[in-house]
Amino acid sequence: MAVRKGNSYQQKKKKQQSIDTNILFKGLIKGDNTALAKAITLIESSRPQDMGLAEHLVTNCLQVETESVRIGITGVPGVGKSTFIEAFGTYLTHLGKKVAVLAVDPSSSITKGSILGDKTRMEKLSKDPNAFIRPSPAQDSLGGVAKRTRETIILCEAAGYDVILVETVGVGQSETLVHSMVDFFLLLKLAGAGDELQGVKRGIMEMADAVVINKADGENIKAVKHAMTEFKRALHLYPPKENQWIPKVTSCSSLNNLGIDAIWEIIVTFLEGTKEDGHFEDNRTRQNKNWFLQTIEEQLKTRFFDKENVKKHMKEYLIGIENKTISPVLAAQKLLVQEDIQ
Amino acid sequence: MAVRKGNSYQQKKKKQQSIDTNILFKGLIKGDNTALAKAITLIESSRPQDMGLAEHLVTNCLQVETESVRIGITGVPGVGKSTFIEAFGTYLTHLGKKVAVLAVDPSSSITKGSILGDKTRMEKLSKDPNAFIRPSPAQDSLGGVAKRTRETIILCEAAGYDVILVETVGVGQSETLVHSMVDFFLLLKLAGAGDELQGVKRGIMEMADAVVINKADGENIKAVKHAMTEFKRALHLYPPKENQWIPKVTSCSSLNNLGIDAIWEIIVTFLEGTKEDGHFEDNRTRQNKNWFLQTIEEQLKTRFFDKENVKKHMKEYLIGIENKTISPVLAAQKLLVQEDIQ
Repeated sequence: MAVRKGNSYQQKKKKQQSIDTNILFKGLIKGDNTALAKAITLIESSRPQDMGLAEHLVTNCLQVETESVRIGITGVPGVGKSTFIEAFGTYLTHLGKKVAVLAVDPSSSITKGSILGDKTRMEKLSKDPNAFIRPSPAQDSLGGVAKRTRETIILCEAAGYDVILVETVGVGQSETLVHSMVDFFLLLKLAGAGDELQGVKRGIMEMADAVVINKADGENIKAVKHAMTEFKRALHLYPPKENQWIPKVTSCSSLNNLGIDAIWEIIVTFLEGTKEDGHFEDNRTRQNKNWFLQTIEEQLKTRFFDKENVKKHMKEYLIGIENKTISPVLAAQKLLVQEDIQ
Repeated sequence: MAVRKGNSYQQKKKKQQSIDTNILFKGLIKGDNTALAKAITLIESSRPQDMGLAEHLVTNCLQVETESVRIGITGVPGVGKSTFIEAFGTYLTHLGKKVAVLAVDPSSSITKGSILGDKTRMEKLSKDPNAFIRPSPAQDSLGGVAKRTRETIILCEAAGYDVILVETVGVGQSETLVHSMVDFFLLLKLAGAGDELQGVKRGIMEMADAVVINKADGENIKAVKHAMTEFKRALHLYPPKENQWIPKVTSCSSLNNLGIDAIWEIIVTFLEGTKEDGHFEDNRTRQNKNWFLQTIEEQLKTRFFDKENVKKHMKEYLIGIENKTISPVLAAQKLLVQEDIQ
């Protein structure tokens, strides 16, 4: 909660800051990257006064009409995500697109090893005037990461970026999270000996709109062909998606810039189909409504579990459940009552 | 909330009912099916005074040491779940086991077509003195179904049932729910032409500890062999489970009682392995802790979304989100504040 201060100070402060967000918004919609970076910093802030301003800025940005596409990109470490994004992003800027690259990396607060922290991994793209790369900041929770990324997408779109690439390293629930905020979900894979799907987390395959076998170069090409057959077979076994899209399997060499155009073709076909039949817009609206409900649910949980009284009794109930001295439902009822009478 | 009444009435009422639950508990652990049925009716009750008593009864039952196994059984309509359970259950009672059959059917409140409503579908088993079949009652929510089924499992185990079969029809989230309350999850399938996995909902294959191709009889046998190969291949592509169990694929003819023993063999092998390495007990403890946390989260949500003030504003925010006149996070913040100042 905001600490109450003297009224005149409060008003002055408010005035100063609302001027700031107006300037930010104006700069942003003109495509000023400095304004965009400042706006993202504002939504990353945890200061109560910033949070209110940030939400009004996001609301303003939401109303800017855009024709953007949001693409999630995932794959295990070593699959070549950075090299792929470098090649794919550069291909898109050459087509005249403005490309923003964001990262969802809930691990960076622990390991401090942000996946996009090192812009040098995308040397060409980071110097490209039509590309905007935002490294993943240290965050304390998946909820925090989700909020920041979803809002950053809105800001980038208002700033005129046509293609938003959201990279994820695939820790914990990060793929599900990225899937819940993009239009198209791309799974990068390597051809390997034996089990082609090993290393893909449970449920990820089912989310993919396209599986791209990377590093299709040199002596690897035969193995890539085999992997493609395996993936096609596996994807074929899944029931159809709600939007009737049949996930595609393709390969590319990010190193040699081969097959990159075919990936964009797939996405364009997807966009044409889903925009025509309304699934594209339906999906975005559903994502926004879920985002609203999730925000409420998270807040309700945080408020409850952060209470001193709840924290104090939580442990003893968990021990009771482990020792079977109390039923889980009874423990829950007791904890809810204890919180009420606090 | 309970309506407050005169103190003497309240005490008398309480005394009457606590005698009842003591009798119920004593009858239950003696294996009296009438007591068991009454106890289940008590936990299904939504009267506030019953709910308190029910939780104490469940807590008592939790402390009864048992060696039970909980098996989830799912499959699309027409796969032959009832016939399978009839054959499998009868096989188990012949081995000297006591078998309880429960159902998770969140649809029954809408369609009134409870999957186990008609005991005649398991004619032999329903007459077997060592079997207990409990039809699915009409429930208003998945949370209600979950609570009832989890607690009914505990009651059945305290009543001496060794094998708990939990059948689900696979509507909505019911498979995930059943998976979260059993030790072993069995997916029934039919051999069909073409896509063997069609009709299996997303994510269900990954939960299966065994896939059983039913109706392996007559002219179907060749198709069953083909289906088994397909499923083995598909399961092989998934990453290993945490407990290192490799899902098995087998077939059976419920009609001719063929292959039923092999299914029990698989489950016995699973139990031996997971009990030895501790995964069995770990899984149950984790399930109970999740149950506790889920109960709290559901209660927090119900309390919030049932408030008149929240209901009133909910619609307008959802419209605002659809029209993009408010950011989902701002809408959530406003709704949370409105509820606070109610």
